[in-house]
Amino acid sequence: MPQLRQDPIAGYWVVIATERAKRPHTFTQAPKEHTKPGRECPFCEGNERMTPAEVIAYRKPGSTPDSPGWYLRVVPNLYPAFGPAEGSLYPHQVGMYAVMQALGVHEVIIDGPDHHNDLGSLSVEQVATVVKAYVERYLAHKDNPIIKYILIIVNHGQEAGASREHPHSQLFGTPLVPAMIEQELAGTKLYQQKTGRCVYCAMLEEELQLGDRLIYENGSFVAFAPYASRVPFEMWILPRHHSSHFEVINEMQRYLFAESLHAVLGKLQQGLNDPPFNLYIHTTPCHDEAGGVYHWHVEILPKLSIAAGFELGSGIMINTATPESAAEFLCSIPI
Amino acid sequence: MPQLRQDPIAGYWVVIATERAKRPHTFTQAPKEHTKPGRECPFCEGNERMTPAEVIAYRKPGSTPDSPGWYLRVVPNLYPAFGPAEGSLYPHQVGMYAVMQALGVHEVIIDGPDHHNDLGSLSVEQVATVVKAYVERYLAHKDNPIIKYILIIVNHGQEAGASREHPHSQLFGTPLVPAMIEQELAGTKLYQQKTGRCVYCAMLEEELQLGDRLIYENGSFVAFAPYASRVPFEMWILPRHHSSHFEVINEMQRYLFAESLHAVLGKLQQGLNDPPFNLYIHTTPCHDEAGGVYHWHVEILPKLSIAAGFELGSGIMINTATPESAAEFLCSIPI
Repeated sequence: MPQLRQDPIAGYWVVIATERAKRPHTFTQAPKEHTKPGRECPFCEGNERMTPAEVIAYRKPGSTPDSPGWYLRVVPNLYPAFGPAEGSLYPHQVGMYAVMQALGVHEVIIDGPDHHNDLGSLSVEQVATVVKAYVERYLAHKDNPIIKYILIIVNHGQEAGASREHPHSQLFGTPLVPAMIEQELAGTKLYQQKTGRCVYCAMLEEELQLGDRLIYENGSFVAFAPYASRVPFEMWILPRHHSSHFEVINEMQRYLFAESLHAVLGKLQQGLNDPPFNLYIHTTPCHDEAGGVYHWHVEILPKLSIAAGFELGSGIMINTATPESAAEFLCSIPI
Repeated sequence: MPQLRQDPIAGYWVVIATERAKRPHTFTQAPKEHTKPGRECPFCEGNERMTPAEVIAYRKPGSTPDSPGWYLRVVPNLYPAFGPAEGSLYPHQVGMYAVMQALGVHEVIIDGPDHHNDLGSLSVEQVATVVKAYVERYLAHKDNPIIKYILIIVNHGQEAGASREHPHSQLFGTPLVPAMIEQELAGTKLYQQKTGRCVYCAMLEEELQLGDRLIYENGSFVAFAPYASRVPFEMWILPRHHSSHFEVINEMQRYLFAESLHAVLGKLQQGLNDPPFNLYIHTTPCHDEAGGVYHWHVEILPKLSIAAGFELGSGIMINTATPESAAEFLCSIPI
């Protein structure tokens, strides 16, 4: 019989539809056509003039901005969803409706010059370089009074909304704290009040003890399939020890974080033949007064199903794979 | 510059990304392959034995259940997300996690024997027959103490999650009130407390007065593109006069409701070459004690974009078409 499972943080319910459950390997993707590196890709080396001028880049000594010789580039999004990062939000009413300027930032982090290898197939060193750029750009924006939250995301594959195949990440600085974060913060605070504990720490303890949803662990990070997984092969990566702010990650942790990203995305890629996915980092809002209560983490949502009328109209996801079978399958994939 | 617009009911924010805004006609779909009616379609006439036994059907006199001769059939979903509709929910904890049985109902309403014509291209009479079935099945389940909410939806097109092309609707009876409904109810109650008015009635008044987001109206229903449209060509259909419960619709209103569905879906189909969409009816929960405060309505979300990492991680949708341009375009399509 189908089961309704509840996420203990944000409180959402998920149907684990065992009646329509599929075996993990049935989610394996058909081979797909890849775009070619080179002339038409604005993120490939040599095409630097096809993007706006770079904000920062990690470069070989002697190379000059907006020219070849880089390991990683950050450029403003050509069609920003948020921006600029200064001015007045001008919140006002239009009749009965509230509106404001979508000030903020929207940057593209080009993960490397390689057109094909992404976070799951680059070297751990290169992934650590990408994480370094995440932190650097986070720090560059976090004190801007306009920016209330910084969301770092990865879209991989066309079905997951990636408009470019060349591996890249995006950083959004928003002038409000997004609803998803507000919900998780509220849930975290409530759990703290009730039990005196961090809900994410409690979850880590439980998952490490049970083990049947664990996917990967190293000295500083643990990855598992959450009990109330919304989609097949949903994965979370949490710092093993309580940590509220992503941007304070030190060099050693950054390397171990890169290792965990590389491992779980590599398993996904190899296990299911490079499926599309969305990934985001959830951390404490900028200028947070309460501080310390939240536990930053990564959520990875493979795009192997479609949120249809029921999901959109109810907010309840129907998941046709159990997290336990997904974790078992991913554990069996060597990295 | 991009704008952040807020929905006045549930309170969600939407980015109207004018920088990346597209002209309405650019959303026109490429021609697609259609599946064939007949042997392989379990919803076609003559294949009644391919579905579970029908729950109800509207039939020609003299025809027998689960055989040809029907105008509309309702069958249980072969792989229900919710069910059965009796027994114990058995809510309990698994370690720190809450879980219960997903009791309820999950039915498929086969809109008619025609494999190709859907709500936008069937006759208004046939659409009114579909609405009649919605009401009849709603009433059949609403007093079941297990069922707290009944959600009626339509998925049209593969990209919108429709697993069958043959036009059909689905009815879900859920053992809890979905979060989306809780949010809208809370917003409706808050607005009522603040202003003494129904927020949907206020919105209708404003939209009818302004006119630039109106798409269609008749004596009993008004369709418009909401100010905080989450996706290109989002459309809402509201009863013109306050009405909290969908299922009390009378025969005349049912016909006018069918006319409005037929009109807006026909415009969408003709204007954009049959795009995929999701549709759902939001109404007052079953066994609602407060009663009367909510205003039932339909929300239609064409699937012309992908909710990617930013949207999933924030809950903020980025919409690349303004509702004003979408409404203008749809108004220009004759029906």
